[in-house]
Amino acid sequence: MPSEPSKQLETFPNPNPERDFLIRMKMPEFTCLCPKTGQPDFATLHLDYIADQTCVELKSLKLYLWSFRDEGAFHEAVTNRILGDLAAATAPRFMRLTAEFYVRGGIYTSIVAEHRADGWQPAPAVDLPPASFQQ
Amino acid sequence: MPSEPSKQLETFPNPNPERDFLIRMKMPEFTCLCPKTGQPDFATLHLDYIADQTCVELKSLKLYLWSFRDEGAFHEAVTNRILGDLAAATAPRFMRLTAEFYVRGGIYTSIVAEHRADGWQPAPAVDLPPASFQQ
Amino acid sequence: MPSEPSKQLETFPNPNPERDFLIRMKMPEFTCLCPKTGQPDFATLHLDYIADQTCVELKSLKLYLWSFRDEGAFHEAVTNRILGDLAAATAPRFMRLTAEFYVRGGIYTSIVAEHRADGWQPAPAVDLPPASFQQ
Amino acid sequence: MPSEPSKQLETFPNPNPERDFLIRMKMPEFTCLCPKTGQPDFATLHLDYIADQTCVELKSLKLYLWSFRDEGAFHEAVTNRILGDLAAATAPRFMRLTAEFYVRGGIYTSIVAEHRADGWQPAPAVDLPPASFQQ
Amino acid sequence: MPSEPSKQLETFPNPNPERDFLIRMKMPEFTCLCPKTGQPDFATLHLDYIADQTCVELKSLKLYLWSFRDEGAFHEAVTNRILGDLAAATAPRFMRLTAEFYVRGGIYTSIVAEHRADGWQPAPAVDLPPASFQQ
Amino acid sequence: MPSEPSKQLETFPNPNPERDFLIRMKMPEFTCLCPKTGQPDFATLHLDYIADQTCVELKSLKLYLWSFRDEGAFHEAVTNRILGDLAAATAPRFMRLTAEFYVRGGIYTSIVAEHRADGWQPAPAVDLPPASFQQ
Amino acid sequence: MPSEPSKQLETFPNPNPERDFLIRMKMPEFTCLCPKTGQPDFATLHLDYIADQTCVELKSLKLYLWSFRDEGAFHEAVTNRILGDLAAATAPRFMRLTAEFYVRGGIYTSIVAEHRADGWQPAPAVDLPPASFQQ
Amino acid sequence: MPSEPSKQLETFPNPNPERDFLIRMKMPEFTCLCPKTGQPDFATLHLDYIADQTCVELKSLKLYLWSFRDEGAFHEAVTNRILGDLAAATAPRFMRLTAEFYVRGGIYTSIVAEHRADGWQPAPAVDLPPASFQQ
Amino acid sequence: MPSEPSKQLETFPNPNPERDFLIRMKMPEFTCLCPKTGQPDFATLHLDYIADQTCVELKSLKLYLWSFRDEGAFHEAVTNRILGDLAAATAPRFMRLTAEFYVRGGIYTSIVAEHRADGWQPAPAVDLPPASFQQ
Amino acid sequence: MPSEPSKQLETFPNPNPERDFLIRMKMPEFTCLCPKTGQPDFATLHLDYIADQTCVELKSLKLYLWSFRDEGAFHEAVTNRILGDLAAATAPRFMRLTAEFYVRGGIYTSIVAEHRADGWQPAPAVDLPPASFQQ
Repeated sequence: MPSEPSKQLETFPNPNPERDFLIRMKMPEFTCLCPKTGQPDFATLHLDYIADQTCVELKSLKLYLWSFRDEGAFHEAVTNRILGDLAAATAPRFMRLTAEFYVRGGIYTSIVAEHRADGWQPAPAVDLPPASFQQ
Repeated sequence: MPSEPSKQLETFPNPNPERDFLIRMKMPEFTCLCPKTGQPDFATLHLDYIADQTCVELKSLKLYLWSFRDEGAFHEAVTNRILGDLAAATAPRFMRLTAEFYVRGGIYTSIVAEHRADGWQPAPAVDLPPASFQQ
Repeated sequence: MPSEPSKQLETFPNPNPERDFLIRMKMPEFTCLCPKTGQPDFATLHLDYIADQTCVELKSLKLYLWSFRDEGAFHEAVTNRILGDLAAATAPRFMRLTAEFYVRGGIYTSIVAEHRADGWQPAPAVDLPPASFQQ
Repeated sequence: MPSEPSKQLETFPNPNPERDFLIRMKMPEFTCLCPKTGQPDFATLHLDYIADQTCVELKSLKLYLWSFRDEGAFHEAVTNRILGDLAAATAPRFMRLTAEFYVRGGIYTSIVAEHRADGWQPAPAVDLPPASFQQ
Repeated sequence: MPSEPSKQLETFPNPNPERDFLIRMKMPEFTCLCPKTGQPDFATLHLDYIADQTCVELKSLKLYLWSFRDEGAFHEAVTNRILGDLAAATAPRFMRLTAEFYVRGGIYTSIVAEHRADGWQPAPAVDLPPASFQQ
Repeated sequence: MPSEPSKQLETFPNPNPERDFLIRMKMPEFTCLCPKTGQPDFATLHLDYIADQTCVELKSLKLYLWSFRDEGAFHEAVTNRILGDLAAATAPRFMRLTAEFYVRGGIYTSIVAEHRADGWQPAPAVDLPPASFQQ
Repeated sequence: MPSEPSKQLETFPNPNPERDFLIRMKMPEFTCLCPKTGQPDFATLHLDYIADQTCVELKSLKLYLWSFRDEGAFHEAVTNRILGDLAAATAPRFMRLTAEFYVRGGIYTSIVAEHRADGWQPAPAVDLPPASFQQ
Repeated sequence: MPSEPSKQLETFPNPNPERDFLIRMKMPEFTCLCPKTGQPDFATLHLDYIADQTCVELKSLKLYLWSFRDEGAFHEAVTNRILGDLAAATAPRFMRLTAEFYVRGGIYTSIVAEHRADGWQPAPAVDLPPASFQQ
Repeated sequence: MPSEPSKQLETFPNPNPERDFLIRMKMPEFTCLCPKTGQPDFATLHLDYIADQTCVELKSLKLYLWSFRDEGAFHEAVTNRILGDLAAATAPRFMRLTAEFYVRGGIYTSIVAEHRADGWQPAPAVDLPPASFQQ
Repeated sequence: MPSEPSKQLETFPNPNPERDFLIRMKMPEFTCLCPKTGQPDFATLHLDYIADQTCVELKSLKLYLWSFRDEGAFHEAVTNRILGDLAAATAPRFMRLTAEFYVRGGIYTSIVAEHRADGWQPAPAVDLPPASFQQ
C-alpha cells in the first residue's frame, strides 16, 4: 500500500461479526478547499460504526482523508460523500459520520449523517447512568 | 447578494435529500434591542435541522441575523420568529432553534423551539454511549 | 409594578401558543432562612417550562424570589411551593423546577419537581447526538 | 438526637406526597475499612430518590454514614446495604445509590444500585435538550 | 494467588444477586503490542457490568490485564477477547467493555462491545435529569 | 457565642506563629443590599492571610458575614470594610480579600484588596511549576 | 443620567484611596462595526484597574460601551481608545484593558493595553500559590 | 514494616542529591476528628519538596496519614504538625504542604505551610510559558 | 490584495505607537507537509507581539499561513522561520510565536520562539491575581 | 535506525542556534516495572528544553522510552536518569523533565528535574497576561 493520497479504502475481516460492537474514530486532520473561494477549509471528523463483515483499515483511511486536500468540497456534500464511500467499502450494519467544520463568517457548522443496513435493528437500549469516578 | 442586513434568506438544493442528515450551526453574534428599554440585548443562537429539499445559505443567514440589530424583540417572540422564518425559507423535515440570551436582572434565559414537517418521523434512535478518547 | 419583594407573579400572553416551546431560566440569587436555626440558606434555581397561554414576567419573578429572603423554608417544601406558585400563575403545559442548595453538614442537596397539565403529551422525542463544534 | 455515629435513620413526613419529585444528595465524606487488610477505604456517595410518605432527615443521615468509619465493608456489599437501609427507613417510590470508591490497585470502581417500590411507574419521560446558558 | 501476570480470572459470590446493580471499573493501565510492528500500544479500559451470581475479583483482574503486556493484539480483536474472557468467567447479566486506544496515525480509536445474558431484560429506564450541585 | 448575626469577630491564638503560613477561605454565602435600589446583592468572598498572633474563628466569621444581610453596601466600600474589620481583629502579617459580585447591568465586578503589616516582608518566592497528576 | 448611549463617563469618589486595591470588570456585551466592511464586530472586554481618587460608575460605563454600537472601529485602535477614555475619566494609578474579539478569517484576536500613572509603583508582589479547595 | 497506622516515617537515600529536583504528592485520603465536636474531618493533602539526603518512603507515608484517623486535630495545627514531622524525618532543602479541608459552616478552608533549610536558595527561576498541546 | 497564498506580509501603521500594548492571535488553521514523508502536518499557531511602528494585516497573514500548505517544513525550523518573517515584516518590540503540532509517534510537540528588539525593555511587571467572576 | 527499543538517542542540528527557543514534548506512553514488586508502572513524561547545537530526534526518543518497558525503575531515580541521558545526548542550554506517575497506594506522585548549562542565563522574563479568546 503506497503512502500517497488515495480514494481507495482498504478493509480487513471483522474479527467478531457474531456481535454488534461499536468502532469509534476521531480524525482531527481533515482539510479540503472551499469550492467558491478556493481557500482551505478544515474539519474534525468523528466516525462511529458497527461493522458487519469488514472493518476499515486505519492507514488507508488516513490516505483517503488526505485525498481531499486539493479538492473543492461543500460542507453538506463532502460529509455525505465520505459517509457513502465508507459505507460502500465496508457495508456496515450502522455508520454515523460527524464533521465539525471550523468557523466561517462567525458561524460554526457541524454535519451529522447516518447509514443503516436494510433490516438491521439495534439491540434494545440499556440505559446506564453517566459514569463518574472519585479520584 | 449585497453585504447588507436583510430578512431575505437564500437557499441551495440539499445535495443528499434521500437521507435524513443533521445540520448544526452555532451563531454567537446575535444582537437586537429590548422593546421596553431600547437597550441592546445579546444572544447565542443554535440551529439544528434536517433539510428536505433545500438548505439555508451561510452568508444570507449571517445577513439575516444582522437585520435584527436595530429591531426591538422579546426573547420568546424573536426566537419563534427566527424559527418560523428559517422553516418558511427551507421547509425542513425537522428544525430546532435555541437562543441563549445574556443575563438580565440576575436571571439567565434560554428559549428552545422546534418545527416538524407534517408526517415526518425520526428514524428509531440508535443509542450510542457517549464518546471518549484517551489523551 | 413596585420594586419590592412580592409573592405576586405577573404574566404576559404567550406569543406563540400554537407551538410547544421551552423556556429555561437559571436563577442563582435565591436565599431564604433555615426554619430550624434561623440561619441563611442559599440555592440556585433552574426553571424549565412549556407555556400554554401565559409566560411569567421576568421582573416580577425576580421580586417573587426576593420575597423568600426573610422566610423560613425547608428544602423539599420550598421547592414544591415555588413550583406550585409558578404553575398556578401561568398554568403551563409542563414545568420543572430544580433547586440546588448550598452544602449543609457536608451533604449537597438538590430537589427536582415537575408539573404537567392534564392531558398534555410531549411530542415524540427526536434524539439528536450531543452537539460539538471545532475550535 | 445525639451527635454520635448511629445506624438509626430518622425521617420526616414528605411535604408533597401527591407529586413524584426527586431528592438528590452528594455525600463526599464516606469512609470505612477494607475487610481484607483493615486499611481505610474512601468513597463519595450519590443518593437520588423519589420519596413516598417520608424523607430522610439530613443530620441522622450524616451520623449514619459516620457509623461505617470503623467497620469492614466490601464495595459491592456496602453499597447495597446502605441502599437497603435507606429504603427500609423511608419506603421510597424510587431510590438509586451510587458509590464512587477511591482507586485501588490502579483500578477505579463505582457501584450503582436501585430500589423501586412495587407497582410504581415513572411518569413518561419529557426529554429536554441539555441546558446551556450564555456567559 | 501469586502476583504474576495471568489469564486466570478469579471471582467471588455476588453479595446481592436478587437485585440488578451496576459495577463500573476504569482501568487506565493497559498495554499490549501492535501485531504488525511489535511496538507498544496503550489503552484505558472501562468495564460496566451487572453481575449475576459472581463478581470479578479486583487483584486477579489487574494480573489479567498485565498478562497482555507482551502479546500482540489488534484493537477490535483484543477488546472482544477481554469482554469474552470476563463474560466467561463471571456469566454476567449484562457487560460492556470500552477500550480507548492512544492515537495512531493521527486517528483516535475506541471500541465498545457488549454481552447480554439470554433472556435478561433491563428494568424500564427511569430518566433522571443530569445532576448538578451548587458550589 | 450566640448564633445570631454579629459584627464581633472572635479569634484564637495562632498555633504556629514562628512560621509564615497561609490560611485560605472561600465563602460563597455572602449577601447584602444595594444602597441605591435596596435590592439584594450577592458575592463570593475569598480570604487569604498569613496570621501573626491570632487566627479568625470560623463560626464568628460566618456570623460576621451574616451581619451584612440587611445592610446597604457598595461593592468597593464593603470589600475594603470587611478587609479592614478582619485585619483589625487579627492583626495579620498579610491579608488579601477578593469579592466576586454577581453580574449587574451585564457587567461582572470583582474587588481585590490587600493589607500588609508594617515591616513584614514575604519570603523570597520559590517558583514551583504548576502541578499536574496522571490519573 | 439618561439611559441612552453616551461617551460621557461618570465617576464617584474612591471610598478607600489610602490603599491600592484592584477593581475588575468583565463586559461581554460589546459590539461595534468593521470600518472596512461595515459589518458588525463583537468583543468581550476585561478591565482591571487600581483607582486613585475616582472610580468609574457602572451604569455610565454600560452606556459608554453602547455608544460604539454604530461606530466603525479597528481592533487595535478601539482598544487603545477605550483605555484612553477610561484613564482620562478616572485618572487611575494603574489600568489594563483586554479586548477579546470574535474570530475573523479563521483568526482569533485579543488586544491588551495598559496605562500607569507617572511615578506609581506596584507594591512588591506576594506570590501566593494558586488556590484550590476540596469539595 | 507492619501495615498498621504509625507516626514513624521511613526514608530512603536520595538517588540524586547533587541536583535540586522536585517531588510532588497528592494524597486525597486524609481524615481526622474535629477536636471540638469529635466528628470526622476530611482533607486532601498536597506535598511538594526538594529532598536533600533522604526521601520519604511511600508506604510509611500512607501509614502515617492513617495514624490521624482517630485523633482530634485543628486545621491550622495539624497542617503545621504534618509539615514538621515530614521535615524532621527527611531534612529537606524545601518543603510545602497544602491541606484542602472539606467545607464546614459554608466556608472552605485550605492551609499552606512551608519549610526551608537554612542557607538554601532556590535556583533563579526560568519562566516557561504555560504548556498547551494541540488535540 | 489577491486571495491567493503568498509569502508577502502586509502591514498597517500602529495606531498607538506611544504605548507598549499586546496583540494576540490564535490561528488554528495551519498545515504544511512533513519533509521526510511528504504527508500532511497540522498545527495551531499562537502569536503574541508588541508592535513598534507597524502591525500585521489580518488577511495577508491568513494568505501567508496558506502559503505553507504545499511546502515541506520541520517543526523547529518552520516555527523559527515564521517568527523571522513576521518580525522582518513588522519590526516589533517583542514577538513570541507558539506552534502546537498535532501528535506524531505518540509524542505531542510544541515550539515557542521569541524575538526582542535591541534595547527594548519590558515595563516592570504588575502582578495581578488571576481573575475570576461569580456565575 | 531499526524500530527496536534502544537507549541510543539520535540528534539533529539545531536549525536556529542563534536564538533561545523552547521545545516541548508530552509523552503519555511510558511504562517500566516496579523494582520492588516487578509489577508495571506507568507515567506521562513532559520534556521542555532549550537546545544548544543539537535537538533530539523524535523516533529515537520514542524507541528510547520503549527501552524502559522491561526494566525496574524507582520514580525518583528514573526521572533523573532520563533527564541525564537526554542532557548528555543533546547538551542543551536548559532542560526540564516532569514525570507524572499513576497513583500507587492512594498517593499520586510527580517528579520534576532540571538541567542547566554552565553559564547559561535565561533572558529577562516578559510577563504576558494569560491568553484568552472569545468564541
